[in-house]
Amino acid sequence: MVKIILSGCNGKMGKVISKLAANSTDLSIAAGIDKNTEKTTFPVFSNISLCNVDADVILDFSRPDALEGLLKYSKEKNIAIVLCTTGYSKEQIAQINEASKKIPVFRSANMSIGINVINKVLKNISELLYKDFDIEIIEKHHNQKVDAPSGTALLLGNTIKDSIPEETTFTYGREGISKRNHNEIGIHAIRGGSIVGDHEVIFAGQGEIIELKHTAMSRDVFAIGALKACQFMYGKSTGLYSMDDVVK
Amino acid sequence: MVKIILSGCNGKMGKVISKLAANSTDLSIAAGIDKNTEKTTFPVFSNISLCNVDADVILDFSRPDALEGLLKYSKEKNIAIVLCTTGYSKEQIAQINEASKKIPVFRSANMSIGINVINKVLKNISELLYKDFDIEIIEKHHNQKVDAPSGTALLLGNTIKDSIPEETTFTYGREGISKRNHNEIGIHAIRGGSIVGDHEVIFAGQGEIIELKHTAMSRDVFAIGALKACQFMYGKSTGLYSMDDVVK
Amino acid sequence: MVKIILSGCNGKMGKVISKLAANSTDLSIAAGIDKNTEKTTFPVFSNISLCNVDADVILDFSRPDALEGLLKYSKEKNIAIVLCTTGYSKEQIAQINEASKKIPVFRSANMSIGINVINKVLKNISELLYKDFDIEIIEKHHNQKVDAPSGTALLLGNTIKDSIPEETTFTYGREGISKRNHNEIGIHAIRGGSIVGDHEVIFAGQGEIIELKHTAMSRDVFAIGALKACQFMYGKSTGLYSMDDVVK
Amino acid sequence: MVKIILSGCNGKMGKVISKLAANSTDLSIAAGIDKNTEKTTFPVFSNISLCNVDADVILDFSRPDALEGLLKYSKEKNIAIVLCTTGYSKEQIAQINEASKKIPVFRSANMSIGINVINKVLKNISELLYKDFDIEIIEKHHNQKVDAPSGTALLLGNTIKDSIPEETTFTYGREGISKRNHNEIGIHAIRGGSIVGDHEVIFAGQGEIIELKHTAMSRDVFAIGALKACQFMYGKSTGLYSMDDVVK
Repeated sequence: MVKIILSGCNGKMGKVISKLAANSTDLSIAAGIDKNTEKTTFPVFSNISLCNVDADVILDFSRPDALEGLLKYSKEKNIAIVLCTTGYSKEQIAQINEASKKIPVFRSANMSIGINVINKVLKNISELLYKDFDIEIIEKHHNQKVDAPSGTALLLGNTIKDSIPEETTFTYGREGISKRNHNEIGIHAIRGGSIVGDHEVIFAGQGEIIELKHTAMSRDVFAIGALKACQFMYGKSTGLYSMDDVVK
Repeated sequence: MVKIILSGCNGKMGKVISKLAANSTDLSIAAGIDKNTEKTTFPVFSNISLCNVDADVILDFSRPDALEGLLKYSKEKNIAIVLCTTGYSKEQIAQINEASKKIPVFRSANMSIGINVINKVLKNISELLYKDFDIEIIEKHHNQKVDAPSGTALLLGNTIKDSIPEETTFTYGREGISKRNHNEIGIHAIRGGSIVGDHEVIFAGQGEIIELKHTAMSRDVFAIGALKACQFMYGKSTGLYSMDDVVK
Repeated sequence: MVKIILSGCNGKMGKVISKLAANSTDLSIAAGIDKNTEKTTFPVFSNISLCNVDADVILDFSRPDALEGLLKYSKEKNIAIVLCTTGYSKEQIAQINEASKKIPVFRSANMSIGINVINKVLKNISELLYKDFDIEIIEKHHNQKVDAPSGTALLLGNTIKDSIPEETTFTYGREGISKRNHNEIGIHAIRGGSIVGDHEVIFAGQGEIIELKHTAMSRDVFAIGALKACQFMYGKSTGLYSMDDVVK
Repeated sequence: MVKIILSGCNGKMGKVISKLAANSTDLSIAAGIDKNTEKTTFPVFSNISLCNVDADVILDFSRPDALEGLLKYSKEKNIAIVLCTTGYSKEQIAQINEASKKIPVFRSANMSIGINVINKVLKNISELLYKDFDIEIIEKHHNQKVDAPSGTALLLGNTIKDSIPEETTFTYGREGISKRNHNEIGIHAIRGGSIVGDHEVIFAGQGEIIELKHTAMSRDVFAIGALKACQFMYGKSTGLYSMDDVVK
């Protein structure tokens, strides 16, 4: 049984994770951390420094500014940490990399197994096809999402970029008169209704099209991935890990 | 047998139409008009003023600057005209409307039956759903297309606009931080490979999505629609007609 | 404020409806009926005959065998009834029709607004296109669904059938050697994962394809539709109503 | 310049290949073989035994019964052979394998680059996901196709089968009452209009879906692949090759 300290336990994702963990026989939430210390089935602390409960892994779905305290605690107790928060500054990413020399650290831009499988084969496909195919990405999210394109669309776009020997640029929509340049990757952000998250990579060639598509039907998918990551990190040695390692 | 004068007979679309008409028992090309007077199975004239062949309908797939001569000839001979050329100026559209008081004139932004059927039901659907659904359009074309968005995407977008009591604006891509406004209609232009023409209208609501999609697999589709229009116009009285009338 | 008696209040759909109604300013659940009388924010009775709470509409998401008691109560109290249960026998459907002569009755095979909008335009499109287009339906549901095809796929299929002057038959998959008959409508049932419910009608012609697609992302969509129906039925006179009337 | 003997040069695919080769600077058709010896830009022989033109590769898009003569000629002249014909008997496949010990032989079930890229990544993805995801295939073809499912759908299905340690079965449509078995792979054949060929593999899991889709927009795609195979086979040593080798 992997015991978890859940940072951000009373947030949207925290609640989904608590619910899933409650039904698991492999994992349990030993304690939660949240500014909102609303009661639940496990003890909740307003700050990780106050936590006095033994655990195997810290799972973080809170905010970038919680990073310092989490890393400090993780190093003191010598336990693994799984970071699912996004929006870290460059300095914070350097801090994370530094910490991974002393403790086992996990960080991924997208926690779904599916996106990480697509991201993995994308390297291969982009390398094989970029010469004869034009590449475009379409992502769709709900109408409350404020940033465009999504972090996951950028993750996929950068994977493509890194797999291609030529220099490429991102294009975020088209209007007016101008022909497509082969070295541009179109990234299109659709917003509407309650769409949880769709991502589609299109390879359009002469007479044929290849599409890789991922649909997240509910937030559960990110929670399932996060719990898989916790299990994966249990007993791991010092180092930096990501979903790529879970997906093999 | 409807006899047609085909203006632009040696262009890309002209050739597709000649081929289809050759296999038809209802229609035939009586004469062609083209700067390039390359021989074919029917006589070809470099200018319509030189044409001395009897016909029932003029079918035009050439360029906007041919309009004046075509309308003059059509009025002199008192025969119907089907205009499939795009890119007319406002003055030319006024000329077309004026001419329709003396001869039967047909003009449509997209000649495919499918797009016109979608455009027709779109009025109805937009009116029913706009309050609770966000509307976005995705169009896909080959990498040689220079204009974005496509004329057909704008046709669909304007149909939606006209069906909604509130003021709406078009958004041609998204990048950066800002929340979707309910009164914006996203129009996204994907470019790649040899895609003939896809158009998709998305209605995204709370918990459900409705999509209307049209795929043109080959240019034949526009030629088939143009020949249907010729047949429809045969024997029609003075007035302005469009694919809406063919689709009923 | 429309006051509702919710039959099946402790079932899967009943709970979704309670949650949505709790956030509504237009509707409220006055009482629930369920064999499981587990406590909630409103009084729950094990049988409708025991219910002594005033209400405007009965909303039923229970089982076919509850029908008789519900109709009896509805007639005695002279209040409208919204039936969202499926699987009624022919005799029960006759009973429902009979009851609609004395009270306002609402019944629909699918409660989502989107499906009903698609079903509505489908009549029109099928009539226009069936001669030149082949029609196929694809539906996708989760791997626990035991019946195939879905009731909604059959609803759409029958709408198409009724819109076409020629005799058509349904084909549920293809294997072996045989050419498609123009008068067959393919219905394909995909099963997998946790898919809530996708339905797609394909019109495939020469050189072009039209697709109408509906995606239900969560069960909320059926609850939202049911509550819309309750509001629609408030104050209605005797008669039989369906989502078609709500969609206009 | 790779010189090709094109067997089946006056068939549908033969003509597409001739046209593409005429525009190529890397390849040329040196001679054609066809029962119909209709004139073209290269000499055409009614039987390969009559061909007296030097070449580097034989490219076959004819019928299974031409195999024996083609292999005989190929061995005598010691030149590579690219077999794109489908429908060989088991005996013929044994003959092909035997011949590959003496000459370079190429054979593939589908000549498009795109399908072969998908087939390649499918091994990897199926292995990673089969435990937690249900797998279904949808293929779409024109209404004149007599066999179902398509050879390519079976190619993809068998790749999935071979990548999974458990025993799996194919299901060709669903009707009636029965729950999906995790070890079944649904294969659904849609037929309609003039669809050239779509193939889609769906991995449906808890809360997420992954889709790999291939669209063939025109027959050109198979011709382009066949010419790529000819170029690939130029100068190759004895052995059996397939598109897998071209795609690396």
